[in-house]
Amino acid sequence: MSFSEAMLDKHSSLWSTMLEHPFLVETRDGELSEETFNTWLKQDYLFVKAAIPFIGQLISKGPDAHRRALGDIIPALNDELELFEERASTLGVDVTDVEPGFTNHAYIQHLKSTGGTSSYEEAFTVYYAAEKAYHESWKVVGEGLDEDSQWYPFVENWAGEEFGQLVNYLESEVNQLAKNSSPKVKKKMERRFTETTKYEIAFWEMAYNGPEWPGTEWGS
Amino acid sequence: MSFSEAMLDKHSSLWSTMLEHPFLVETRDGELSEETFNTWLKQDYLFVKAAIPFIGQLISKGPDAHRRALGDIIPALNDELELFEERASTLGVDVTDVEPGFTNHAYIQHLKSTGGTSSYEEAFTVYYAAEKAYHESWKVVGEGLDEDSQWYPFVENWAGEEFGQLVNYLESEVNQLAKNSSPKVKKKMERRFTETTKYEIAFWEMAYNGPEWPGTEWGS
Amino acid sequence: MSFSEAMLDKHSSLWSTMLEHPFLVETRDGELSEETFNTWLKQDYLFVKAAIPFIGQLISKGPDAHRRALGDIIPALNDELELFEERASTLGVDVTDVEPGFTNHAYIQHLKSTGGTSSYEEAFTVYYAAEKAYHESWKVVGEGLDEDSQWYPFVENWAGEEFGQLVNYLESEVNQLAKNSSPKVKKKMERRFTETTKYEIAFWEMAYNGPEWPGTEWGS
Amino acid sequence: MSFSEAMLDKHSSLWSTMLEHPFLVETRDGELSEETFNTWLKQDYLFVKAAIPFIGQLISKGPDAHRRALGDIIPALNDELELFEERASTLGVDVTDVEPGFTNHAYIQHLKSTGGTSSYEEAFTVYYAAEKAYHESWKVVGEGLDEDSQWYPFVENWAGEEFGQLVNYLESEVNQLAKNSSPKVKKKMERRFTETTKYEIAFWEMAYNGPEWPGTEWGS
Repeated sequence: MSFSEAMLDKHSSLWSTMLEHPFLVETRDGELSEETFNTWLKQDYLFVKAAIPFIGQLISKGPDAHRRALGDIIPALNDELELFEERASTLGVDVTDVEPGFTNHAYIQHLKSTGGTSSYEEAFTVYYAAEKAYHESWKVVGEGLDEDSQWYPFVENWAGEEFGQLVNYLESEVNQLAKNSSPKVKKKMERRFTETTKYEIAFWEMAYNGPEWPGTEWGS
Repeated sequence: MSFSEAMLDKHSSLWSTMLEHPFLVETRDGELSEETFNTWLKQDYLFVKAAIPFIGQLISKGPDAHRRALGDIIPALNDELELFEERASTLGVDVTDVEPGFTNHAYIQHLKSTGGTSSYEEAFTVYYAAEKAYHESWKVVGEGLDEDSQWYPFVENWAGEEFGQLVNYLESEVNQLAKNSSPKVKKKMERRFTETTKYEIAFWEMAYNGPEWPGTEWGS
Repeated sequence: MSFSEAMLDKHSSLWSTMLEHPFLVETRDGELSEETFNTWLKQDYLFVKAAIPFIGQLISKGPDAHRRALGDIIPALNDELELFEERASTLGVDVTDVEPGFTNHAYIQHLKSTGGTSSYEEAFTVYYAAEKAYHESWKVVGEGLDEDSQWYPFVENWAGEEFGQLVNYLESEVNQLAKNSSPKVKKKMERRFTETTKYEIAFWEMAYNGPEWPGTEWGS
Repeated sequence: MSFSEAMLDKHSSLWSTMLEHPFLVETRDGELSEETFNTWLKQDYLFVKAAIPFIGQLISKGPDAHRRALGDIIPALNDELELFEERASTLGVDVTDVEPGFTNHAYIQHLKSTGGTSSYEEAFTVYYAAEKAYHESWKVVGEGLDEDSQWYPFVENWAGEEFGQLVNYLESEVNQLAKNSSPKVKKKMERRFTETTKYEIAFWEMAYNGPEWPGTEWGS
């Protein structure tokens, strides 16, 4: 059994919690409010921006064989940012001056921290888990969302074939990395897989419930 | 006005929110449950452990003039861990096998990320803010907690004179760094100050309300 | 006076030492041996490979405004590697299994070290200095080398207009960075400029005299 | 056979080249000029300074079990710097304003680069190799140098029992790390071992022949 199969099997309940999150389900069923969607839109724009330096960190650590593929991801993420800007403009949302919600800030620090201080195997696992999660999450949305929806371009972007090929590539490479790794490293990769899945869940939760930082309501 | 004075003045409301957090107030007033205190104890033990590599990152970036002082912090943190272990043993709490709560994980990634990828000025500001916050937070607790309390050694550790001298040193050095920095860097230092204060608040909140990761309750 | 003008003026003697290096002069005048050129070819192929993770480090640290430009450099470096492979094949040189010479190893560590542990301003200065040096060095070669030479494609690559535009961009950005930096940071940028120029000189020297590691001849 | 035994056996010729370097042999035999020794003294003072941030990097990456030991190395290196300052003062040498020679700069970048961007296993191997090399090199000197020599305190420092215990600790830990590592990682550790030994040889060579940067003599 490959690493990715083992992870998705062993942590299937965590994975289902993510795919059944009310944000996804309600977006799929046309029941999500615009305001809630826009919270996601604004926060995720910041997150995608932060993914670019993370890919830079992966490039700085990766083997020669990964550099061309990773190098092509940076322009792809720049294009993704343009999709956000174009959608934001269409939907009348301002993404230029957004403060990161708590979970978003934390997830971005998770990227930067693993990119900067963990092994390549671990950092690559974080990236794989995040992209796999987005591919599958937006496939859930795509099962019901009207193709005429203003939100549908995001389904096309992440649930589509091109992105699916990237996820397949990441999956086959993460499996290769795991295969060549010691049990100790493999265990760390598993930890990164579950952590990242939990950050993904927390991100949907933040989009659904708002970007506030915990405890700030105690202020008099 | 020094950088630290400017920060504590401009963000006094955020700072008060922290110092008035119910965890601190109830600990001071002898109203906190043992269970809640133990949640903090277990989580903070993990956090202090994570502070050691963060100091390593500071040492790797800092000027010659800081190396002796920073070098002395590592043994001090190792001693702090022993205080936790000794208290945990007295209180019958197991700190050996704790999973980080969401906010704890996030705050640790915040340390690692700024330590690994931000400028020394920013990373040093994070450290100053975190230690200043702990010094003042435990001074709040010390205003009321019975000296015979099993929890009092933590007051002695962080509200005491020796730790106070460390905080004074960090304060004078962060002010010096700010003084020699461009406006652009100073603005980033301010951002690190407010972020770190908000992580501190979130940490008390996690201790008070539990270490769960957001959204995991959706799982069927 | 801009930062780059100040540097090239103040350190003009160091810069001239580089541009008058016998490797460049003899290549220009058709007097360099094939063997010596091939030493350069093999070593520089390794160096360009190492530049890719360095650009990854820059991407991981740079401001939003630089990310698209830096992101485009990775595919350009991958293309540059193909130029090396194609030339090597034409010239009958094997670049697949080269051990780095001492100076090459050292210069690569210089890239990785500044990319990983110095400020963005310093790391960007290293990159600017290295590319500026290559642009001007190969313009020297271009002043005399026969356009039919097997080596001429390297002149076209680095002395040409497209690369010149990249160097202009880097120059204007390094000047902007310097302008917004404190005197302390600017002084560090100057140090990186001179260090990198000295590594460039040492690199030509290694190509000219051989890639041996110092002192290994003492072995009995 | 442990990793360290395998390395010292397989690369015994490289290791002998180091231990038979004329700098060591002539220092041992009382034949080295003061000027040459002082070149070493000044350059190595800079190198030891640079070792402190490198240990910071190790602390930032290492397992919990290494943190106390690594934390104790920082104060030890600060003491070592005081030995240099005291000896320099006695010998009438100014170590306060030294520019790094080429090989010294390169070796420092090697530390910073592996500390910042390589795996812990690799960075720890660099540290082990460097300290093992110094222990054995100064044991060579100690075989002949008069105990009344002004230089003898360096023999006491590095060839002595206390330092020997540190080297033993590093050796047993590097062997443990290798034992738990995949063949791929072990191969990288070997590369770091040989590279670092070659930097050590180059360092003695620089002390012996002078700190100039290659090629700078071409300047008109």
